[in-house]
Amino acid sequence: MDSQKIKCSDESFISDDVRMRGFKQRSTVEQLTHWLDQQSIDLAEESIPIQDAYGRVLAQDIVSDINIPSFARSMMDGYALIASNTQGASSYNQLQLQIIGKSMPGHGTHVKVTPGTAVKIMTGAPVPEGANAILPAENVDMEEPFILVMESVAEGRNIGRIGEDISLDSIILKQGRSLRPQDIAMLASIGKKDVVVRRRLKVSIVVTGNEILPVGNKPQQYQITNSNGPMLEALSLRDNATVISSTIVADDPEQIEQAMLDDYDILLITGGTSVGEEDLVPLLVAKLGELVFHGVTMRPSRSTGIGVVDKKLVFLLPGNPVACLCAYDFFAGRFIRQRSAKPRNWPYYSVQKKLKQKISSHLGRTDYARVRLTKDNTVEPIAISGAAILSSTTEADGFIIVQANSEGYAAGTDVDVFLYD
Amino acid sequence: MDSQKIKCSDESFISDDVRMRGFKQRSTVEQLTHWLDQQSIDLAEESIPIQDAYGRVLAQDIVSDINIPSFARSMMDGYALIASNTQGASSYNQLQLQIIGKSMPGHGTHVKVTPGTAVKIMTGAPVPEGANAILPAENVDMEEPFILVMESVAEGRNIGRIGEDISLDSIILKQGRSLRPQDIAMLASIGKKDVVVRRRLKVSIVVTGNEILPVGNKPQQYQITNSNGPMLEALSLRDNATVISSTIVADDPEQIEQAMLDDYDILLITGGTSVGEEDLVPLLVAKLGELVFHGVTMRPSRSTGIGVVDKKLVFLLPGNPVACLCAYDFFAGRFIRQRSAKPRNWPYYSVQKKLKQKISSHLGRTDYARVRLTKDNTVEPIAISGAAILSSTTEADGFIIVQANSEGYAAGTDVDVFLYD
Repeated sequence: MDSQKIKCSDESFISDDVRMRGFKQRSTVEQLTHWLDQQSIDLAEESIPIQDAYGRVLAQDIVSDINIPSFARSMMDGYALIASNTQGASSYNQLQLQIIGKSMPGHGTHVKVTPGTAVKIMTGAPVPEGANAILPAENVDMEEPFILVMESVAEGRNIGRIGEDISLDSIILKQGRSLRPQDIAMLASIGKKDVVVRRRLKVSIVVTGNEILPVGNKPQQYQITNSNGPMLEALSLRDNATVISSTIVADDPEQIEQAMLDDYDILLITGGTSVGEEDLVPLLVAKLGELVFHGVTMRPSRSTGIGVVDKKLVFLLPGNPVACLCAYDFFAGRFIRQRSAKPRNWPYYSVQKKLKQKISSHLGRTDYARVRLTKDNTVEPIAISGAAILSSTTEADGFIIVQANSEGYAAGTDVDVFLYD
Repeated sequence: MDSQKIKCSDESFISDDVRMRGFKQRSTVEQLTHWLDQQSIDLAEESIPIQDAYGRVLAQDIVSDINIPSFARSMMDGYALIASNTQGASSYNQLQLQIIGKSMPGHGTHVKVTPGTAVKIMTGAPVPEGANAILPAENVDMEEPFILVMESVAEGRNIGRIGEDISLDSIILKQGRSLRPQDIAMLASIGKKDVVVRRRLKVSIVVTGNEILPVGNKPQQYQITNSNGPMLEALSLRDNATVISSTIVADDPEQIEQAMLDDYDILLITGGTSVGEEDLVPLLVAKLGELVFHGVTMRPSRSTGIGVVDKKLVFLLPGNPVACLCAYDFFAGRFIRQRSAKPRNWPYYSVQKKLKQKISSHLGRTDYARVRLTKDNTVEPIAISGAAILSSTTEADGFIIVQANSEGYAAGTDVDVFLYD
């Protein structure tokens, strides 16, 4: 970075005094999430091969133009026959039928089943004309070219009806769905090659700070290496967004402004987002668009903000890594996951555990407390838990959320633990 | 496919009679999973950029060769000062200190804090010599070049100690861990560019059957389009394996044998895996290696098998799509997920719900029952639920497992529902 270009003392548009005086008014977590849930975004459709579609969001209802199965098929290995020919059969009353043919998957047979006869048939093979039931192979003794029926079978039994899985002209998958592995199988089975999905959300990541080194450099002196950038890339990837750029920008209004005008759907910007002297981001968001929220009654991540620039969402994430992770998951991730048709609340499994030690909080503040699972099947808070202590999130097994209407939880309380994945 | 090459009547190595007579002896789900959990596989190490490492399994302990922070840093925007200089301060007893400098992130200051003075400091900036506490900006009134201290601060307060996040020579991440977004951030912050991980498990997928069409073709007559292949690809991808090949092979011993000798770590082979006439796969596994299990006391997926060929695991998955999905998740997926350091049991969220209608099963059989969430917050089984009815897995919201020691669950029973993702 060219230090000549860094103008962190360019404070023409706001007085130093204002910057150092904290948030004018903080919002609650609920205010932010409620607002976020009202926001919409128009993601274009794109056609992709079905084999690439796992986890993608279906853009159109899928209507089948065929029946599956398209023919009456056997559900078992056994014998296609006339059900009434088996009536009264048992081990003690074996009924003889003559095998007159064989129906194999993909082929079938032209032989017609008549009273007293049966056709050997494999699972998935077409049921021959005349037959109305399949008797499983295990209910038969062989005496070639005859079978000895040892159990009766009801009409229709073990036959897959035409269209019983997928019926012609029915909607088999609805738009807005995140495609599962079995959905891909459905698409394949009706002959689809491609499927129309919403394109992924395009995320731009900007890490601001004169002191930030690019990944792969060991921090010297007072520098720190960019860690929020790669973390946010992984988080965005996990939540099915596409990261279109991930850059480091100096604490320079022009450079930050430039980065804010990229071709993203949402911008994640971290560092310089609070109310300190170098915190240019909130001011620039307000200048270029609207700073809708700034300051949240939560710990960590109280300096989180949300803005709108050029009709696009900008998430102001704290520079402290724990706070950055937390603010991503509470807000930016929520928005992204909703676009991916994923559960918007948490991407984490939750389990209920007893607290080993109490957790204190303040009324009116939401806390994100990292916890460790203990050997006695409880959870305990991580001791060193400042917003700057990234290791608190790697040593933790997960976190609990202390809601704003609680002063914390006593030891022994049952709490929901969200497990890091 | 050249029908001349198809030799589905080549039955020289086993009699037709044996093939049609069912499983000699079935094993329990627990026998298979217990055996699977004993199996090991040696996955080589590979070095990859940390930015590609999310979800990968760490192959070596990571030891930090630096302290983070590497300098005493401010945790707040405020003033670096001598804590004792603030003793007794309040709104009614404001204590004056002279601002003698400024410490910014990445730079710091050479100015030394002495009694009666303070240095303005930003979050993340180095604490100047002489200072032993940071007073937050909001606890100060300005009267340039002085601050009026309105609250006392204890020694050490709001200062991040050297090494308090990551200490020199400590193990920060242990081998065997599936890397989380915050782990990537840890690796970045100590200056790592690359990280040594286990390579992904290589999966080969083979779908057998003369009647199977490749993806993208509409089934005609008695054909069906390959749907298990793309489904198994998506499942393997979800569980962090690499699919090295996915092919359709005719019911021809030579072709199947050829496919079994590919360069995979595990083989998923579906279709022709039961005990019917065309079911060549179990016989070929036994011929080329060992068929360890064949036939499981579960529904669906009772024809599931596990074999070992050339010291590599072969999973014989039923051709019926529901059974294929189920057998993958119970067995093959379990093995794959364990190699990805993911929870081996289920990749699905589970929630507890009341059953709206009873589910019947048989003692000694494990059932995989697809269920739908209802509006009254219960779950109900999907009506059409044969192993061939793929739509039962797309219409379902998830499934419940009826354990082998249960004859089913009465309406009103609390059950664990595994939600499809």
